[in-house]
Amino acid sequence: MACPIGPMRAADMAAPGGGEPVSAQEQVKVESLSSLFAPRAVALVGASQDTNKIRGRLLKLLLDGGYSGKVYPVNPSSKQIQGLAAYPSVDALPEPVDLALIAVAADQVMDVLEQCARRGVKAAAIFSAGGHAPVGERLQDHVAAFAARSGIRILGPNAEGYLDADARVVATFSPTLEVVPLPAPGTVERRHGVSIVSQSGASAYALYSRARALHIPIRHLVSTGNEADVELLEVVDYLITLGTSRAIMLFVEGFRNPERLAGVAQRALAAGIVLLVAKIGRSGAGQRAAVSHTAHLTGADTAYDAAFERYGLLRADRPEQMLALAAAVSAGMEPAGRKVGIITTSGGAGGWAADICEAEGLEVPPLEPAFKQQLATIVPDYGSSENPVDVTARVVEDGGQTLMNILELVSAADGIDIGLIIVSMVTSNRVRDVAERLAPMLQARRRPLVFHSPGEPAAEGMQLLSEIGGLHMQLGDFAYAMRRLCEHREFVERWRRAGAASGSAARDAAAAPRIALDAAAGSLDPAQTRALLSAYGVSMAEEAVVATPQEARAAAARIGFPVALKIVSPDVPHKTEAGGVALGLADEAQVAAAYDRIMQNVRRHAPQARIEGIQVQRMMTQGREMVVGVVNDADFGPMVMLGFGGIYVEVLRDVVFALAPLDLAGAHAMIERLQGVDILRGARGQAPADLDALARFLVAVSELAAAYPRQIAEIDLNPVMLFERGGGVCAVDALVVAAAPAAAGSRHEDAAVAKAE
Amino acid sequence: MACPIGPMRAADMAAPGGGEPVSAQEQVKVESLSSLFAPRAVALVGASQDTNKIRGRLLKLLLDGGYSGKVYPVNPSSKQIQGLAAYPSVDALPEPVDLALIAVAADQVMDVLEQCARRGVKAAAIFSAGGHAPVGERLQDHVAAFAARSGIRILGPNAEGYLDADARVVATFSPTLEVVPLPAPGTVERRHGVSIVSQSGASAYALYSRARALHIPIRHLVSTGNEADVELLEVVDYLITLGTSRAIMLFVEGFRNPERLAGVAQRALAAGIVLLVAKIGRSGAGQRAAVSHTAHLTGADTAYDAAFERYGLLRADRPEQMLALAAAVSAGMEPAGRKVGIITTSGGAGGWAADICEAEGLEVPPLEPAFKQQLATIVPDYGSSENPVDVTARVVEDGGQTLMNILELVSAADGIDIGLIIVSMVTSNRVRDVAERLAPMLQARRRPLVFHSPGEPAAEGMQLLSEIGGLHMQLGDFAYAMRRLCEHREFVERWRRAGAASGSAARDAAAAPRIALDAAAGSLDPAQTRALLSAYGVSMAEEAVVATPQEARAAAARIGFPVALKIVSPDVPHKTEAGGVALGLADEAQVAAAYDRIMQNVRRHAPQARIEGIQVQRMMTQGREMVVGVVNDADFGPMVMLGFGGIYVEVLRDVVFALAPLDLAGAHAMIERLQGVDILRGARGQAPADLDALARFLVAVSELAAAYPRQIAEIDLNPVMLFERGGGVCAVDALVVAAAPAAAGSRHEDAAVAKAE
Repeated sequence: MACPIGPMRAADMAAPGGGEPVSAQEQVKVESLSSLFAPRAVALVGASQDTNKIRGRLLKLLLDGGYSGKVYPVNPSSKQIQGLAAYPSVDALPEPVDLALIAVAADQVMDVLEQCARRGVKAAAIFSAGGHAPVGERLQDHVAAFAARSGIRILGPNAEGYLDADARVVATFSPTLEVVPLPAPGTVERRHGVSIVSQSGASAYALYSRARALHIPIRHLVSTGNEADVELLEVVDYLITLGTSRAIMLFVEGFRNPERLAGVAQRALAAGIVLLVAKIGRSGAGQRAAVSHTAHLTGADTAYDAAFERYGLLRADRPEQMLALAAAVSAGMEPAGRKVGIITTSGGAGGWAADICEAEGLEVPPLEPAFKQQLATIVPDYGSSENPVDVTARVVEDGGQTLMNILELVSAADGIDIGLIIVSMVTSNRVRDVAERLAPMLQARRRPLVFHSPGEPAAEGMQLLSEIGGLHMQLGDFAYAMRRLCEHREFVERWRRAGAASGSAARDAAAAPRIALDAAAGSLDPAQTRALLSAYGVSMAEEAVVATPQEARAAAARIGFPVALKIVSPDVPHKTEAGGVALGLADEAQVAAAYDRIMQNVRRHAPQARIEGIQVQRMMTQGREMVVGVVNDADFGPMVMLGFGGIYVEVLRDVVFALAPLDLAGAHAMIERLQGVDILRGARGQAPADLDALARFLVAVSELAAAYPRQIAEIDLNPVMLFERGGGVCAVDALVVAAAPAAAGSRHEDAAVAKAE
Repeated sequence: MACPIGPMRAADMAAPGGGEPVSAQEQVKVESLSSLFAPRAVALVGASQDTNKIRGRLLKLLLDGGYSGKVYPVNPSSKQIQGLAAYPSVDALPEPVDLALIAVAADQVMDVLEQCARRGVKAAAIFSAGGHAPVGERLQDHVAAFAARSGIRILGPNAEGYLDADARVVATFSPTLEVVPLPAPGTVERRHGVSIVSQSGASAYALYSRARALHIPIRHLVSTGNEADVELLEVVDYLITLGTSRAIMLFVEGFRNPERLAGVAQRALAAGIVLLVAKIGRSGAGQRAAVSHTAHLTGADTAYDAAFERYGLLRADRPEQMLALAAAVSAGMEPAGRKVGIITTSGGAGGWAADICEAEGLEVPPLEPAFKQQLATIVPDYGSSENPVDVTARVVEDGGQTLMNILELVSAADGIDIGLIIVSMVTSNRVRDVAERLAPMLQARRRPLVFHSPGEPAAEGMQLLSEIGGLHMQLGDFAYAMRRLCEHREFVERWRRAGAASGSAARDAAAAPRIALDAAAGSLDPAQTRALLSAYGVSMAEEAVVATPQEARAAAARIGFPVALKIVSPDVPHKTEAGGVALGLADEAQVAAAYDRIMQNVRRHAPQARIEGIQVQRMMTQGREMVVGVVNDADFGPMVMLGFGGIYVEVLRDVVFALAPLDLAGAHAMIERLQGVDILRGARGQAPADLDALARFLVAVSELAAAYPRQIAEIDLNPVMLFERGGGVCAVDALVVAAAPAAAGSRHEDAAVAKAE
């Protein structure tokens, strides 16, 4: 029997070679996007002579962009538009076209599409927006149905278009392209290409103009609009296949097909392409009803974070950060570690840089003696050969000779991974002086060398620096980008290792036990809960349910003191108020006495209550309280939560989430993400906790969650007692909530689970 | 008897009207700086014809800057330099000059200064650096002595000079001034002036060029170099007196006279001038030996943070942040609260902005119904009248008319404090369209209105925007600056209130008790510790030292159960290992038995030990464990520390520091700075803690610390039990360490404390 799991499978992380296999049908759809980007001939439907209008600017930008194929303006009221022969309709075009750019009134769009289908159009972009109709009557619903029927790939409606710097297709009305046109053909760029795929048109072109100002060569930009057909992740997939971008910036409001993410991310990783994501909505009112203790900690955004974490996408919170990452990747920065060697002509600026680097999690370590000795022969007495190295302003005033010597040293020295060169570029002389010698050094890319000018750098110098493959960054951006790229490199290494060890980490799917869950929603009873958890190896505290004082004594002696006694009754929801709980019982006599006392209390409090017995539970006093849980996300399926127990988890919010299932490495990585992980490692002479056991525990919980993606709504293990190394871990209280059948069936097929065995 | 307190007195915060009174001598010294900035005639000693050299560039920049006074180049080997008659020496000048700019070899500096003294020079700047000599033989030591002797105010040595945009004195060799000269005289700037005072020359001019690129009008820039005489805070004081700057950016490696800070900060607050600080050294190896549990939490930098917090200086961690604050202050942004109304032409950009604002601690609240209704008449159907308000791109395409109508609404609407207008300025048309109507609205300054262009804004448009008094910011900078300015406004309000209530908060100095401390360094004994703490109202847990089992029973009954018993013996340092501790004793019988057991254990363990008794102490099980401490900072005197107890304080570092003494408002503000303060406020249904009692406790500790600034090296109260509201607070264990007499006398006079009474 195949193990039915959610959209994110253990195997997702186990195929680094070529990534997730794509279905043939998917592959054809992705490849069909080529008609959008590299058409032989284009019809521009709704073209206008007036270039102040969207419909006129669209044609003008296409023509100005240098597209080499045939362009046919379509407009029934003109014979000629912007110097080209115009046609009254698509039907009337003299030859078939493969791409239609549609900028007509919304109520004419469907008619134009029908004509397109008749004339062999393979792809279309709809710039029209379409007003406010109910679902099913909206333009985008009609377009979606048409695309499915016709096989024509359609971008939009309500798209702000796209551009392809290689095919020189500029299919947008964005005024940004008037200000920042595509670079002239043949422009040599010593940087890797970067692309932009965005659900927000304005944000796409904003990123484009800012990226260009940072000398980042943009290869593709696609504004996906309302995504009636072509959706963001599909475009990303296409761009990965093209392979002309080393980074892709994604601006996301919400994935239309989140289940596509795993495969796309895999293929990007396999191709060495970095996916950078802006996902808006962190601050939005919660999209999820907070159903429980565990779930209320899940912001609307947590699942996206967990998915990005899982699949190696780099989320940036601010435009500056995203652009800094894009610039660094584009300039080929691949830091092998976090150790920064700072070379500065100003002690003050060097100190500020060191503070910023260390605050961001980079290191500014003491230099190796050999490197220091080499520097000491160059640096004047009143400078410093410590890191940050203050070479003094004097050494850069010899036309660049000494600076280049220092850069040679920095690019080869042991003990550092990244060179940060802080030197004034307020005039462009400095770059001009060294450009010829610097260019080949930068091309060699022995390690990242990044420049920073404390004063406002001259535009001309920045242009020249970028032309020779150099990179200038602000200090905060530098530190942020290098740290994130280090983390990403570590992620990629883990991912490759996981691929090499494929199959060993996760439980054999075929052997996964199946426990029938009650089809009705609600909490499982204690026995079923315990059976389910133990079937997956989720350890629980030893306990027993007893019916006499003698049984209680015997159970306590077996379990070990101190113990707690708790009434078990479906009619006593508030055990403590009913006098149904006794804690800290140290010996058999105390246990027997407490048994009688609890029975008396409960009978007095609730004479009619059905009493099923008294639970004897070992009290866990020596361990550390943790919380582990599972919540189900509508987009990404079950997520495992880990946090510190007690009120710290509530107030300090030191909780982390990860998509299920986890392997051991993933579980350890999850533990590492706790802010207070040092507490568990044994900070300040405390005994280290059993983190290996905790990781196994998390794996077990995650496998359980993944095995019932639509049947288990929530798992809450609270507290989970984590003991000293070798002492293991166990859940003391457990709550498993089954999903309501309707909700259970709403998302994923899970046919292999028999509802009643 | 006057209460001897440290350099920071309670009265420091109690004179908002005019700030701290300055001594007449100090005042004269500060005023004497006017000769530096507004000289009648200048000698440039070491002037050169070669403008590629520092000494030539210095003269050229001075002449190019437009200084209207007389300039005399001094150089024995030229008759004429850069078109001016040159003189062989200062002695040979045809008339007295009041300012000398000295750029000669280091070994000639003192001779030049002697000539300056003879010719009536009042101020000098020394650009020469001086090499590596031992202390006492260094140029700066000679210069310091000369300044003290002659009364000439001297900037440097090793200064990169200064500039005064009003007097048009450009006294620097920084190439930055060639690229970014002072604005032409008479340039109208609709922004407040900002100045720069820096211990790093390169950083000063870097900030200058970047500030100018942000259209911030810089009034003064001073690089103070090695500060043989004129030091940074003195220059700041002078600029405050001048009153031409609304903000001053300080770049600090370390204050030469930290005791000056309180007064300078007071005067800045009184004048409405914001002090922005870059203080480097956060990441440096600790400057302080970690002497104890409490002290090791003190980074080298903590005292500076506490001082800035206390005196209302805004520390910025990154250049971008400092410049964002400077730009916002310069543009007159004074947010009355944290509520941001976002107006955007792009839903995506608006969402990103909202996320960034809320992550930074601003609010993006729902709009008032009246405002929403007004917007709804303007915003098209497919936009949104919710906050962020998506007015859609269409409304800004009518030449600015509608945008201006919206801005009118935003600047007047109830329920928001700050307007953030997100609109593309990729072309400069948008600013040009609205400039005429926008200018008077911005001048009216009803509330901060800040612009953001998601795409790279056109330089011309930014220039125009600044000319009409408008401000463009990046989103992260915007959110950061507005949040910090809100905090600053709140600080100023507290400061004014504290002034109004002057004298009521802090303990009457004359009534402060005096307890003689042992002159020898080391820990105080328990009795002396208790006496000292209780004299200042620092509550401790009840306890008693007893000599018989009967006394122990009686003491425990009086104190209340459960109790702990601990051996008291100078010869048993490790009480637990000696069997000298019993915890959790629940009744008198257990106490008596434990007494006997402890005595037997200790006598067996250490037969020779002198036993002084057994301590009976109430065990505090219901309270929350906190830690309170005092450490002495070399620069700023005693600081109070507050943190959560247990290992959380160690690992999560949720500790805060404040300069002693504190008043109640200051103590409450300190508590509020704990990350986990919600735990104490009663998060998640927990009972709120007695924060009023904790604040009083902190005030008492701080007054004790301030009363013995040089005699107490450290106080460690750990744990401090904090009970539910009304339950109070008390220290369970206390350690007071007296300073070694040498150290005690090293910094502050404290003559009024009799060493032996």
